[in-house]
Amino acid sequence: MLRPVSTPFSSLVVVRLGRTDSAGVWYFTEALDLAHEVFEEFLSSSGAPLHLFLAPGSVRLPIVHAEADFRAPVRCGDSLRVSLAITSCTKRSFSVVCDFQLLDGTPVASTRIVHAGAAASGSGSADLPESLLQALGALA
Amino acid sequence: MLRPVSTPFSSLVVVRLGRTDSAGVWYFTEALDLAHEVFEEFLSSSGAPLHLFLAPGSVRLPIVHAEADFRAPVRCGDSLRVSLAITSCTKRSFSVVCDFQLLDGTPVASTRIVHAGAAASGSGSADLPESLLQALGALA
Amino acid sequence: MLRPVSTPFSSLVVVRLGRTDSAGVWYFTEALDLAHEVFEEFLSSSGAPLHLFLAPGSVRLPIVHAEADFRAPVRCGDSLRVSLAITSCTKRSFSVVCDFQLLDGTPVASTRIVHAGAAASGSGSADLPESLLQALGALA
Amino acid sequence: MLRPVSTPFSSLVVVRLGRTDSAGVWYFTEALDLAHEVFEEFLSSSGAPLHLFLAPGSVRLPIVHAEADFRAPVRCGDSLRVSLAITSCTKRSFSVVCDFQLLDGTPVASTRIVHAGAAASGSGSADLPESLLQALGALA
Repeated sequence: MLRPVSTPFSSLVVVRLGRTDSAGVWYFTEALDLAHEVFEEFLSSSGAPLHLFLAPGSVRLPIVHAEADFRAPVRCGDSLRVSLAITSCTKRSFSVVCDFQLLDGTPVASTRIVHAGAAASGSGSADLPESLLQALGALA
Repeated sequence: MLRPVSTPFSSLVVVRLGRTDSAGVWYFTEALDLAHEVFEEFLSSSGAPLHLFLAPGSVRLPIVHAEADFRAPVRCGDSLRVSLAITSCTKRSFSVVCDFQLLDGTPVASTRIVHAGAAASGSGSADLPESLLQALGALA
Repeated sequence: MLRPVSTPFSSLVVVRLGRTDSAGVWYFTEALDLAHEVFEEFLSSSGAPLHLFLAPGSVRLPIVHAEADFRAPVRCGDSLRVSLAITSCTKRSFSVVCDFQLLDGTPVASTRIVHAGAAASGSGSADLPESLLQALGALA
Repeated sequence: MLRPVSTPFSSLVVVRLGRTDSAGVWYFTEALDLAHEVFEEFLSSSGAPLHLFLAPGSVRLPIVHAEADFRAPVRCGDSLRVSLAITSCTKRSFSVVCDFQLLDGTPVASTRIVHAGAAASGSGSADLPESLLQALGALA
């Protein structure tokens, strides 16, 4: 287990019409999609944008597990504060945890997404690149 | 705890370009989206289509938890056999479990989505409608 | 024909992984989805957020036509400047035109989305609400 | 101009919750997404599945224009008959036209998507592969 990040990252998102469904709330997969968007924003701000890990020959970062809990409805136009933390970082995997709150502090959802390092060839696991560990805050 | 369904439901889906991402595989939220589509297909085939529970005044079925595990990459054009089962059905909630396999039997992903009954007003929990319990196979 | 808006609106968006496909570029519908998101941002900034027109009893604003032209590939992580203008505003319809450029000025796409006023009941056309015309800049 | 296809292709789709929005109808980009899904189904049935044109070194088929017209609302659970035809096929581009109808024949939407051949390198246009022209019905 490497060092957990000490400074959580946060971002503001607004739930737009295309993320809602005819039950009148955000469609459930959108919490996970927004969590991934905030993770990409975090990576960019940390100097290791995701597209580096999409290049041919790069170690890949497939998602091996994702989950979301929902506590209160979210509607079109709602602004959400998303707080992101990297947890459980090892040499070969890490978890991205996000908490979603309305601007009045009401918790509405939380997500956890687990990435693992995979060989560029697509088969077999691989150590996470040092540039990524640095960005995740797992290196001193 | 009511009776679990005895006859699992299954469906065939093909992963289309719009569900993939530039890592060359399906985007992770699509497993959950496809699981929900197969659940809707199951409900229709059981005589209780989802749109009945979107009507004004109906008990709502919000998702309170969703999770997915990924075992192997899925690419554009892959056909997947999705096997659905209703588990853990109580008077106020139920889980929809889906297993995804390539046509050669390779398991690629599994999902679990938990729905709870909620009052039409949007606040407070509610008993699941009898027509739904019937469709879920939870009534004799 | 009412007055066209004189001050175009612009916004910055970043194309995230979930909007790309396994051809390595953004999936074509995402240009239209992002255009609608920027339109929603414009409406909020103009004091008439879209959710006002989703409320029961409100005049609806269904889309009757949408189109997009693509000039250059857009990839995961690309930042885009989106310039929005309201054109062709009448009492019963208006067009939202967006131009997408990379930050170096390269034009990559343009979209046009036409909305029409519709009765709350869902059948028949309706005059656009004055609050909307004001927000669109079509009133003096 | 090559030969237009003589035998239109058709498919049945059901609009699921994830394609709807909180206005209670399908989100407008979903008509184009469904049209592309039916096009992929057509290509597979014609022996030239889309993933062949995603392989490294293959001529690419980027979309250069897309448009949709909407005539009537479509709701969660609606079944739609989608009729596809290939029009305007030249050596370097072709159009895919889809008409969407409810099962009672009510026309609800139509789409047109224009693809162009592009060099594998990503820059410059290219002739469409003969296998594709064959699949499109443009060769005798």
